[in-house]
Amino acid sequence: MGSFQGHALPGSFFLVAGVWWTGKYSLWRASRRSKNLGSTRLASRTSQRRLEVVESAVVLFFSFVGMLAEQFADDGPRLHLYDSSEKHWEQLMNWQHATMYLFFGLAAAVSLVVHTADAAPLALDRLMLAVAFFNEGFLFFFHLHGRSVLDVHVHHLLLFAVFGGALVAFLEVFHRGNAALELLRCTLTLLQGSWFWQIGFVLYPPRSPEWDLGDHDNVMFVTMCFSWHLAFAMLLVSAIYCTVSCAVRSRLRRTPPMEMGLLKSRDRDPESEDEIL
Amino acid sequence: MGSFQGHALPGSFFLVAGVWWTGKYSLWRASRRSKNLGSTRLASRTSQRRLEVVESAVVLFFSFVGMLAEQFADDGPRLHLYDSSEKHWEQLMNWQHATMYLFFGLAAAVSLVVHTADAAPLALDRLMLAVAFFNEGFLFFFHLHGRSVLDVHVHHLLLFAVFGGALVAFLEVFHRGNAALELLRCTLTLLQGSWFWQIGFVLYPPRSPEWDLGDHDNVMFVTMCFSWHLAFAMLLVSAIYCTVSCAVRSRLRRTPPMEMGLLKSRDRDPESEDEIL
Amino acid sequence: MGSFQGHALPGSFFLVAGVWWTGKYSLWRASRRSKNLGSTRLASRTSQRRLEVVESAVVLFFSFVGMLAEQFADDGPRLHLYDSSEKHWEQLMNWQHATMYLFFGLAAAVSLVVHTADAAPLALDRLMLAVAFFNEGFLFFFHLHGRSVLDVHVHHLLLFAVFGGALVAFLEVFHRGNAALELLRCTLTLLQGSWFWQIGFVLYPPRSPEWDLGDHDNVMFVTMCFSWHLAFAMLLVSAIYCTVSCAVRSRLRRTPPMEMGLLKSRDRDPESEDEIL
Amino acid sequence: MGSFQGHALPGSFFLVAGVWWTGKYSLWRASRRSKNLGSTRLASRTSQRRLEVVESAVVLFFSFVGMLAEQFADDGPRLHLYDSSEKHWEQLMNWQHATMYLFFGLAAAVSLVVHTADAAPLALDRLMLAVAFFNEGFLFFFHLHGRSVLDVHVHHLLLFAVFGGALVAFLEVFHRGNAALELLRCTLTLLQGSWFWQIGFVLYPPRSPEWDLGDHDNVMFVTMCFSWHLAFAMLLVSAIYCTVSCAVRSRLRRTPPMEMGLLKSRDRDPESEDEIL
Repeated sequence: MGSFQGHALPGSFFLVAGVWWTGKYSLWRASRRSKNLGSTRLASRTSQRRLEVVESAVVLFFSFVGMLAEQFADDGPRLHLYDSSEKHWEQLMNWQHATMYLFFGLAAAVSLVVHTADAAPLALDRLMLAVAFFNEGFLFFFHLHGRSVLDVHVHHLLLFAVFGGALVAFLEVFHRGNAALELLRCTLTLLQGSWFWQIGFVLYPPRSPEWDLGDHDNVMFVTMCFSWHLAFAMLLVSAIYCTVSCAVRSRLRRTPPMEMGLLKSRDRDPESEDEIL
Repeated sequence: MGSFQGHALPGSFFLVAGVWWTGKYSLWRASRRSKNLGSTRLASRTSQRRLEVVESAVVLFFSFVGMLAEQFADDGPRLHLYDSSEKHWEQLMNWQHATMYLFFGLAAAVSLVVHTADAAPLALDRLMLAVAFFNEGFLFFFHLHGRSVLDVHVHHLLLFAVFGGALVAFLEVFHRGNAALELLRCTLTLLQGSWFWQIGFVLYPPRSPEWDLGDHDNVMFVTMCFSWHLAFAMLLVSAIYCTVSCAVRSRLRRTPPMEMGLLKSRDRDPESEDEIL
Repeated sequence: MGSFQGHALPGSFFLVAGVWWTGKYSLWRASRRSKNLGSTRLASRTSQRRLEVVESAVVLFFSFVGMLAEQFADDGPRLHLYDSSEKHWEQLMNWQHATMYLFFGLAAAVSLVVHTADAAPLALDRLMLAVAFFNEGFLFFFHLHGRSVLDVHVHHLLLFAVFGGALVAFLEVFHRGNAALELLRCTLTLLQGSWFWQIGFVLYPPRSPEWDLGDHDNVMFVTMCFSWHLAFAMLLVSAIYCTVSCAVRSRLRRTPPMEMGLLKSRDRDPESEDEIL
Repeated sequence: MGSFQGHALPGSFFLVAGVWWTGKYSLWRASRRSKNLGSTRLASRTSQRRLEVVESAVVLFFSFVGMLAEQFADDGPRLHLYDSSEKHWEQLMNWQHATMYLFFGLAAAVSLVVHTADAAPLALDRLMLAVAFFNEGFLFFFHLHGRSVLDVHVHHLLLFAVFGGALVAFLEVFHRGNAALELLRCTLTLLQGSWFWQIGFVLYPPRSPEWDLGDHDNVMFVTMCFSWHLAFAMLLVSAIYCTVSCAVRSRLRRTPPMEMGLLKSRDRDPESEDEIL
């Protein structure tokens, strides 16, 4: 995966996930705020569940595809782990990336079960997400032996976003539905995504000249650049949140309140899963 | 204890403990969920207490046996601590392992008192468990001076499971009965157990050729292997949880509801200790 | 910014912020305590909001001025980031300081929105403050490459105050309105402010002889000095708290209770934002 | 303070504090448990306050004496901080110890105010205790430059007890009256006290031969010895808790219930400060 594409691909996935989560939570929150105006349809428990199930299924699918790709791409290990004739491990990088996908797949599978069956405790989806993020950071952390200063540094910075996401998801086990934590997780996921792109541009510049990977000024610039990515992620989350809030409010204003009363009596389930907790 | 057996033995204990805890919590949770179907017998406060007392007594017994074994096995120090003629400490390893057993024994003793007498605060059993895990990790941490790279690394990885278990048990002092924390503790205990076996296979391979303890590729493989053990532990916990849930539900369906009403009036104690808290 | 003034300026800002916050929280708490004496005017939700909005606007203004000053002062980079002819970064220090101001500006902007519009969750203002403090510490942390022992040490000590402030602000997301946390945040902000001054005096002594930046005795003295600054900050917070409490109480005693009843019926909004949460 | 007495003295203080706190909390808890038997006299709010005030006054007094002793003992700096003729700091050790006492004095002063006046938030006493412990550990941490391996190690082990105590006291800000946290703080205070004695015996053995301060076996033994001190502290806390519980219960049994009813109507204040919170 030591290539520009190898960093741009997971980066894009995390960017999409961050935008999707921000939109989802903004929509739910906006709908819940204006429930007295009749928007329970959007944030009803049934539709929330359906959305979670679809999301989990999509994540599960892409994790599976990712694992297959890591194994059977051109330079993949094709499920061979150890070459006993030459006594060396086969393509440990690919195996590690496949392991990361495996954990996100497990998290998606648990989320799928939690939101379809009633048996499992609801908080498990956040716990598994925290474990998946933690595992990603854990593998990256022991991944960096013997690289150049700047290479190590950009990956260390990535770990701030990854372990930050793990910590926030773990806190959500206890504070489910806390708006600040949800938006912080969205921000950190976006940050992780855009930072993967940045790593690609720094280590494998597609067109521009190579970076001096040992220069300390570059380390200092890259650190500041990470702050800018964080600021950008916060601005993006704010923009999505405001847009969705305004859209929901303006749409509700045009809907006649009559129809709403009818809807309400039909959708008589608890308003949101988080409130049942 | 520098031998394959020396790592397989504690590993087996932790594996048994992990499976047992998973079964226990799954059973209680499943029974509580279906209480309206009359299963209070399984999860009633009295039977919960009895189970905890039996569990604590068994742990106490094995801790005591472990301490004796460490002291009086063939190469044990037989309670001699310092050889003042030759000015060196006697078998510090065995003493350290005995100390680890001592703390698990203390935790079991406190748990025994907490669940028999009413005087002591209930949360103390989790606190003592956290202290026992912390002490184990603490002694391992200062245990690794001057060993080879891979040896240190596999023990550092073990510390993730040990300190993770300590942290989760400490959080349970405040969030007793949180399903996510209970299952996470079970997972980390299983992980610890299976990782002890893995350490045995890496450092003292019983049949296969020796590992190169300085090779960095081995370090990277072992790190990934730890992730796989974690995934395996999570799958095992999930499997036990699902099996127990299904078994409880199917058994309840066959029981006539009549008998249940009678049972209920007999077992009229609070349903679970955690809810009294 | 490597100058005495460069440290005295932010120091003064943090000192002012610390004193202002201490006064604000003391006033609100004292007013709330004696609400039955009719002081709701001071701590009413409307006036609280107005105060927060003014505070946020002032912080936003000064952050903007700070960014401009860092860019367009005599030795500023004037928005040039990279000199491609000589292949080096332009004035990274100034850019980093401008980034710090940017985050405090963002926090102030979010606080402004949170306290004017109803749409955004209230806890976001503390979260953004935590992020701003964290970002400040984060940039300082990777700022210290290749400096002398004492220089690094005084900045490391600063990080205790900065990250401490970030942690406390983050805890306030969950425990908003906790008096102990509020006063601790005020204390750490004052500590940060006075320590900036101390750094200026140590690294760029205006009149006295230079310090030996490699002497370990100086390191030990400076560590203790940090404790004294902390004690001074705690005493200052206590003094302000007591003064404000006494002033509010004595003023209330002179106000006839009659008028109060009238006020109360006019200001019939919830007493404080924190209680709505 | 580099002497046996210099470590035995603070050790004794912490031992006394640990025993005292254990007794106090055990008494309150036992009295509260058996309140229906009429023991509110012991755990009434008024008597609790009186006890806290006396305790704080005693701590304040000894902190003041400690500061004076550090300054004006034979080799003390007598308030001289810097010898500008010889350009070196005067007795930084004594100044550091005096600073530690200062913070415990401040904590005691705040506790005194909190429990006499109603103005200050109750949680401040635990916060100040946490700050005092943190400051002690903070000064010790930067205290150890250039010492021998074993000397550094025994002080690092001490930091586990000190920072552990700070963390527990900080958690008590949010979970005041949590039995597990209170007993844990007592345990860690006892551990700190007995470990100060152990440090004295290791570094300045009064009669026995000197320890080899560079031997790694000694490091390993001392680590295990810390665990034993922890086990001893836990046993001591348990013993005091059980003794007090039994004494309170047996004394209550001998008291005629009649008298109790009378007492109850007299002491009609809230039963405990913690419950008011």
